[in-house]
Amino acid sequence: MEYRKFNDNYIIRLNKGEEVISSLKELCEKEDIKLAEITGLGASNLVEIGVFNINTKEYNTKVFEGMFEITSLVGNATRKDGEVYLHIHINFGDEDGNVKGGHLVQSKISATSEIIVRKIEGQVGRKLSSEIGLNLIQFSV
Amino acid sequence: MEYRKFNDNYIIRLNKGEEVISSLKELCEKEDIKLAEITGLGASNLVEIGVFNINTKEYNTKVFEGMFEITSLVGNATRKDGEVYLHIHINFGDEDGNVKGGHLVQSKISATSEIIVRKIEGQVGRKLSSEIGLNLIQFSV
Amino acid sequence: MEYRKFNDNYIIRLNKGEEVISSLKELCEKEDIKLAEITGLGASNLVEIGVFNINTKEYNTKVFEGMFEITSLVGNATRKDGEVYLHIHINFGDEDGNVKGGHLVQSKISATSEIIVRKIEGQVGRKLSSEIGLNLIQFSV
Repeated sequence: MEYRKFNDNYIIRLNKGEEVISSLKELCEKEDIKLAEITGLGASNLVEIGVFNINTKEYNTKVFEGMFEITSLVGNATRKDGEVYLHIHINFGDEDGNVKGGHLVQSKISATSEIIVRKIEGQVGRKLSSEIGLNLIQFSV
Repeated sequence: MEYRKFNDNYIIRLNKGEEVISSLKELCEKEDIKLAEITGLGASNLVEIGVFNINTKEYNTKVFEGMFEITSLVGNATRKDGEVYLHIHINFGDEDGNVKGGHLVQSKISATSEIIVRKIEGQVGRKLSSEIGLNLIQFSV
Repeated sequence: MEYRKFNDNYIIRLNKGEEVISSLKELCEKEDIKLAEITGLGASNLVEIGVFNINTKEYNTKVFEGMFEITSLVGNATRKDGEVYLHIHINFGDEDGNVKGGHLVQSKISATSEIIVRKIEGQVGRKLSSEIGLNLIQFSV
């Protein structure tokens, strides 16, 4: 991971073999980012996604391996109990251009990935909702 | 819908049962947002999309029901004749990760949705183009 | 192409027959944009995408013609040897809502396209990596 900050924007380049979620977590910890909007693209050879099952309140996860273009990364960085919490959804296309996607669990970069983390001054927390089964955004932090 | 404003950014959490377009319309009215960029993600059990037919100049709409991850919401808020006008496109993945998408007509939230509305100082209008059949962006407002 | 600048944001409307990459290149040249985040949507009748093959180090390109909603454009503008360099990935849905996507080579607009280019003060370059086969982001410019 290489990056540079321009005002509130972190321009990030991930390199071959690096993983999206763990890299961004490292960035947010190091740079003390508490709240941010995240957008990006890239190329990946392994993507793990989750689809939330509202009945079981669990993510069903699937791993895809191949030659993929990450057609979009959209999400946010917040904090849960002070810890960096990333919530990013991914779309990715295969060699025929067919797009799959879901809640991003992990994505390993095969060539490069370019991500913009736009820091927002402020703080937003997370709290597990037993009703929903997810760590929902909390504004009272 | 719960939200908080941080500088020009509205961080929004939609709850189970709420609908994306009507919620964001309410936000833009209440907060007097005339121009904004919108990005987001979530989980939905009902998505209605339109695909614009350039011959008939109408949207063919389709309703999908299931357990979906909203893999991206990308769009903008403007005004048409003073009224809030939202233009958002959606991608959403099913339980196998297959992604569908189009012009967002409505999406009902099944678990949660997290949207960032970045207000832009300024104003952009809309006007129906009889040639195209759409309410196109107008800069002379 | 019509556009207006509001602070650091260019709100862009592309018209029928215009092409996304060449239009944005023209914008970045004319407005001297060296670094920017790009998001957008639209409707297109022709999309050419590439999927990067990490073995041959070449993009395999495919052209799709039909009635498509551009469900997301996500990317950035940088510079390579002083020249505008756009890196944008696209998702687009067909009449059934099935989404395809990849590295955007070109997309011709059939009805309209609405793109936000958010200029970031600063400069980021590109350099061909012989190892990867791509023009990777370079921060030492």
